[in-house]
Amino acid sequence: MHGPVVPSPDAHVAHRPPDDPHIRLTGGLWQTWQHVNRATSVPLALGWLEKSGALANFRIAAGEEEGAHRGPVYADSDVHKMLETAAWELQYGPDDTLTAFLSDTASLLERAQQDDGYLDSHYQVAEPGRRYTRLVDSHEHYCAGHLFQAAVAACRTTGGERLLGVARRLADHLCAEFLADAGPGLDGHPEVETALVELFRATGEERYLTLAARMVERRGHGLVGRHKHGARHRLDHLPVREAPAVTGHVVRALYLEAGAVDLAAETGDTALLEASAARWEDMAATRTSLTGGLGSRHVGEVFGERYELPPDLSYNETCASAASIQWSWRLLLATGEGRYADLVERTLYNAFAAARSVDGRTYYKGNPLQRRPDHAEAVGDPRCRDEWFWSACCPPSVTRLVASLPHYASTTAGDTVFLHQYAPMELSCAHAGGTVGLRIDTDYPWDGVVTVTVDRTPPGEWALGLRVPPWSTRTWLTEPGGARREVVPDAQGRVLVRRSWRAGEQVVLELDMTPRLTVPHPRIDAVRGSAAVERGPLVYCFEQADQPAGTEVDELALPAGAELRVRDHADLPGLGRTVTIEADGLAVTGAHEAGLPYRALGAVDERRPAVVTAVPYFQWDNRGDGAMRVWVPLVSS
Amino acid sequence: MHGPVVPSPDAHVAHRPPDDPHIRLTGGLWQTWQHVNRATSVPLALGWLEKSGALANFRIAAGEEEGAHRGPVYADSDVHKMLETAAWELQYGPDDTLTAFLSDTASLLERAQQDDGYLDSHYQVAEPGRRYTRLVDSHEHYCAGHLFQAAVAACRTTGGERLLGVARRLADHLCAEFLADAGPGLDGHPEVETALVELFRATGEERYLTLAARMVERRGHGLVGRHKHGARHRLDHLPVREAPAVTGHVVRALYLEAGAVDLAAETGDTALLEASAARWEDMAATRTSLTGGLGSRHVGEVFGERYELPPDLSYNETCASAASIQWSWRLLLATGEGRYADLVERTLYNAFAAARSVDGRTYYKGNPLQRRPDHAEAVGDPRCRDEWFWSACCPPSVTRLVASLPHYASTTAGDTVFLHQYAPMELSCAHAGGTVGLRIDTDYPWDGVVTVTVDRTPPGEWALGLRVPPWSTRTWLTEPGGARREVVPDAQGRVLVRRSWRAGEQVVLELDMTPRLTVPHPRIDAVRGSAAVERGPLVYCFEQADQPAGTEVDELALPAGAELRVRDHADLPGLGRTVTIEADGLAVTGAHEAGLPYRALGAVDERRPAVVTAVPYFQWDNRGDGAMRVWVPLVSS
Repeated sequence: MHGPVVPSPDAHVAHRPPDDPHIRLTGGLWQTWQHVNRATSVPLALGWLEKSGALANFRIAAGEEEGAHRGPVYADSDVHKMLETAAWELQYGPDDTLTAFLSDTASLLERAQQDDGYLDSHYQVAEPGRRYTRLVDSHEHYCAGHLFQAAVAACRTTGGERLLGVARRLADHLCAEFLADAGPGLDGHPEVETALVELFRATGEERYLTLAARMVERRGHGLVGRHKHGARHRLDHLPVREAPAVTGHVVRALYLEAGAVDLAAETGDTALLEASAARWEDMAATRTSLTGGLGSRHVGEVFGERYELPPDLSYNETCASAASIQWSWRLLLATGEGRYADLVERTLYNAFAAARSVDGRTYYKGNPLQRRPDHAEAVGDPRCRDEWFWSACCPPSVTRLVASLPHYASTTAGDTVFLHQYAPMELSCAHAGGTVGLRIDTDYPWDGVVTVTVDRTPPGEWALGLRVPPWSTRTWLTEPGGARREVVPDAQGRVLVRRSWRAGEQVVLELDMTPRLTVPHPRIDAVRGSAAVERGPLVYCFEQADQPAGTEVDELALPAGAELRVRDHADLPGLGRTVTIEADGLAVTGAHEAGLPYRALGAVDERRPAVVTAVPYFQWDNRGDGAMRVWVPLVSS
Repeated sequence: MHGPVVPSPDAHVAHRPPDDPHIRLTGGLWQTWQHVNRATSVPLALGWLEKSGALANFRIAAGEEEGAHRGPVYADSDVHKMLETAAWELQYGPDDTLTAFLSDTASLLERAQQDDGYLDSHYQVAEPGRRYTRLVDSHEHYCAGHLFQAAVAACRTTGGERLLGVARRLADHLCAEFLADAGPGLDGHPEVETALVELFRATGEERYLTLAARMVERRGHGLVGRHKHGARHRLDHLPVREAPAVTGHVVRALYLEAGAVDLAAETGDTALLEASAARWEDMAATRTSLTGGLGSRHVGEVFGERYELPPDLSYNETCASAASIQWSWRLLLATGEGRYADLVERTLYNAFAAARSVDGRTYYKGNPLQRRPDHAEAVGDPRCRDEWFWSACCPPSVTRLVASLPHYASTTAGDTVFLHQYAPMELSCAHAGGTVGLRIDTDYPWDGVVTVTVDRTPPGEWALGLRVPPWSTRTWLTEPGGARREVVPDAQGRVLVRRSWRAGEQVVLELDMTPRLTVPHPRIDAVRGSAAVERGPLVYCFEQADQPAGTEVDELALPAGAELRVRDHADLPGLGRTVTIEADGLAVTGAHEAGLPYRALGAVDERRPAVVTAVPYFQWDNRGDGAMRVWVPLVSS
C-alpha cells in the first residue's frame, strides 16, 4: 500500500518509496498521533464539513438542496482534504464512518460535477458563468488539485474508482481547457501542479503530466493576473527555473516547489530540480524558524526577508509546515540527500506537531515561538487553538499528513533500505529479490536508542541505511555479532550496514539525546543574545505553568553554562508522555531610565536564581493560555 | 496668534500657552522644515486633493459636478487637515495660494453642507440615507473633528469666519443628533472629542464641551458596534477612566487620549486626567520605540504587547507620531510635568521627522527602525516613501504639525516662561504685567548651546524655565553676570532663572551632546544584545550608503567600548546640514551548521574591523533604498 509520492518506474529519482510496502505502527508518539487522528480529529472535522456548509455547497451544486454557497471560494478543498485523510486512514484498518464518507462524498461529487467535467461548488452556485475569469484569486485549480490528491490516495489504498472517475473527468476537462487554450490560465494558488503529476502517476495519463509542465513553465511570466499583493506574492514574478529564492505567500510557494520537483523527477529536468533545491537551501539557511516553521509575517502570509525570524510575530502557518515536509520529501526522493529528512524531522516534531492540541480537538493556524503574558492585542488571528476556521485550510492539512505519516519513514535506493525517521513500527517491502521485513523498536523521540530487527530477509547481501540526525554529536552502532562502537555518519548523514542478513539479526543505533543549548546565527536579529533548549529532534519551550511562583516567563534567563537536567514523565497531566528539562536559571528585572525602556550602556539588572523548566514545544498550550517562549536570554554565568 | 490647544480661562491646567504670543523662527532645522512645508509639501498636497478626488467629492455633494465618490470613506479629512495646515501656515506670512485654498474651500464646504448642517461627502454622494448607520467604520464624526480643528486653526490665525460657520453648523447638528439621542452614536475612530473641546474653546459654546464629555464617557460600554477586530481595537472595551493601558488601534487610542485630557482640563476631572496619565506612563515605559514611534504591528495597526518592539516589523505610523505629540503636549499643559516634553522631543526629531523625505516631497506611513538589504517581501505597504496614498492620512498629519510646530516650544506657569524645545526663534508674549520678548539662538539639535536673550521685559521679577533633557548627563548654565556653572535640573527636569531682568541680558544653557550608546531594557526581546547610537535628541542609524565597500549593514557590530567620533557636515549630499558619527566597528560573519541558521553554543564568528558611520535616523532613506538599522549588535571589545 503506497502513500503520497510514488514516482513512475521511469522517473529520475535517487530514492524510491519501498516497493509493495506494508507498514504498521506498533506504539510510540506517531501511533498516539494516529489514534488521536482517528478517534477525535477526523470525526470532528467531518462534523465541521457539515456545519461549515462545505458539503452542502456540493449538494446545492448538484441541485439537491436550496441555499447560498457558504465559506471561502476554496471551501471545496476542505472536503477534498478530508477525503484524502479518510483514504490514508483506511489503510490502517476498516472504519464504517470513513468508508461511508468516502463513498457518499464521491457519489455527491459525481452528481455535482458538470457534464463537461467542471467541478467547483463556488462557481457553480455563487458565480455561474464566471468560471476561470479571475484565476488569480479563484482557487479553481487549487481545489481541483486537492481533489486529485484525494483520488490518488483512495486509488492507492481503498481503490476509490468512483472518486478517481470524478478526478479524471475534471482533469480531462482541465486538459481540454488549458492545454488547448493559448490564454493565461494560471491559478493564483499553486497546488494543481503536484497533484497532476501524482494523478499521472496513478493513471499513466501523459496529458496530466503535460498540463502540470505547462503550468509550471508558464508561471513567472505575469500571466496569473494582477493582485494587490503583486506578482511576487503569487509566484508570478520570475520563471520557476530562474527564481533564486523562495518568496511571497509561503504555502503557495511550497506547493509550487513540490510540483516543480515532482515534474523534474518525472521528466529528468535537472535544471528545474537544481533551481528548486537551491531555493530550499537558501530557505533552510535564512528563513526557517528553529521549529521548522516558515513565514515570518502575518501580513500577506509571506516568508519575509532573509534572517527575518521573529519568535513572537512569525506566522509559521500549519499548512506551511505540512507543505514544507511535502517539498523536502520530494527532494529527498529526487536527490537522495539526507539533509531533506533532517528538515522533515525538525518540522514534523516541532512546528507541525504543535499546531494540534494533545487531545486532537483544536488547531493553531499560526505557530509562533513566543507568546507574551497578556497577549490581549491579538487581531486577525485567534489567541488560542480552535476546532475549525472560516478559512479552514490547516486542520485537514494536519489530519491528512498524520494519516500518511508512516510513508515518510523509509525509502530504498539500489540495494539499500533507508530509515529516515524512527518510530516503533513493522515495515515489510519487496527488496533485493525477495521480501525484507523490519521491526523498529524505539522510544524515539524521548530516547535515542533505535533497535532494528530484520524479521525477514531474502538471501544475499543488502544494506540498511540509518539516518543520523545532525544534532547527534556522538552516535553508537551495534551490528549483528559486533561490539557497540562509536560511528561517524557519512557525508549524507547516514550509517550503512551491508551484509547477508539472517532473520532475527539486530542493529542498534544510539543517538545522543543530551539536552543542548542552541544559539542563533548572528544575523537573526530577533533572538540575538538568546538560546533555545533542544533535545534530540525536539525544540523545547518555557511555559508559565512550569515556572516557580512569582517568576514570569518573560523574566527568565539562562546562564551559558547551565546544566540541563532531564526529567522523564510517563504521564504529565495535560501532556501525557513527555520529557521535561530543568535548569538553574535566573529571573532578570531591569530598571527604566527616564520612564522609557532604554538605558545607558552599563545599566545593571537585578538577577535572582530560579529553577526553570522547559517542555517540548509541540506540547505547548495544553495547560491554559499563559506566556511561552522558546528563546531565552543567555547571560554570562 | 495662538496655536493648537488653548485652554479656556477657567481651565484646570498647570501650564498655559504664552499669552498673546508672537513667534518667528529665525533659522535652524525647524525653519528648514517649515520652508520645505510651504515651498514643496503643501503645494504637492493641495494638488493631490484634486488628483485623489477629495475636493471633487465635495463638488459632487454640492451638486456642481457629476461623478462617483472617490477614495476612502474618510477622504474628507484630507481636505480638512490641509485647511488646518493652510491656516497655521498663514500665521508666518501671506500666501495667495493658501488664502485662496482656504476661502474657496470654505465656500465649497458651505455649498456642500446640507440644510440641517450634516456634511460628509461620502454619505451624501455614495450612501445617501445611510448617515450614522455604521459609525463603527464610517468616520463621520472623525471627519467632523478634523473640520472643527481646521476651523479653530483658521479662527486663531486668519479669522476664518466662513469656515467656522460651516463647523458650527455641523457641530450644532451633531449636538442635535447626539446630545438628544439616547442611542449609541459613537464613532469607531475617535478624534471629534478633542476637536469639540477646541471648538468650545474657540467659540465659548458649552454644548460642544458637553457633547465631547458625552462621547468620552459613553465609550467603553460596547456602544460603538461590532467590528471584526473587536471592541478593544475600537477602544470600546473599557470606559476611558478605567482602562489601565493603551491598546488597540494606535491612532484611534491617541486621539481619544487627547480628547480625554482636553476634557479633563476644561472640567477639572482629576480622575479622568490621572487615568490618561497612567496610560501614557505605561506606554512610554513598555510600548515606545527608541524613536518615539508607536504601534508594533501592521496587522490592525495596533500597539502590540508590552515590550513587543520589533525594529523591523513595527508599524510606527506617522499619524501616530503626530498624535503622540498632541497627547503629550496636552498632558504637559494639564500637569506641567517635564517628561511629556521629553517624549515630544524624542518623537518629533526621530519617528515624526523621518516620515518625510528631506526634500519634502514624499512620506512614509510606517517608520520601522530597520530595513533589510533586499526588502523585496513588502506587502501592503510601500517599500519607499510616496507622495500620497489612497489612505492619505499621514502626509497632512505632517504638514499640519510642522505648520503649528513653534507653538509646542513654550508655555507659561505663574510668573515663569518655560522653554520646552529649542530652536532659533523670536518669541514675545504678554507676561508679568507687560511684554516679554525672547530671542533664542542655537544650533540645536546639532549643538547643545542655547542662548536666550531677553530682548524685552516688564519691570519686576519673573522666571525663565529651561528644560534639561534627560539625555544631558552634564549641563551647564551661565546666568546674566554669573559664571558658567554645572547645574542639576529639578525633579521636573528644568533649571529656573528667576530675576528682575534687564533688556539684553542673556542666559546660556549648555547641554551635553556627547554621543552615547543606548541599550534596551532586558524585556525588549527584539533588540537584545544590541545598542543604538544617540546624540542629543537624535537617534542615529546605519545606512548602507555610509559603510565601507564590502561591508553589509546587517553584518555590523559595535564593541561596547567603541569611541564615537562626531563629524559635522554643513551640507552632506542628499541630507543637507547634518552631524554624522563614526566608530571603529566590526563586521561579523557567521557560519551555518547543518544548513540552518542555528548553532551549538560556543560557535565562533569571523570578525573583521570596519569603520562604520551613522547618520541621524530622521534623515534616512534620502540616498537610495539600501539597508538601514538603528540597533546594532554589541560585542565585547
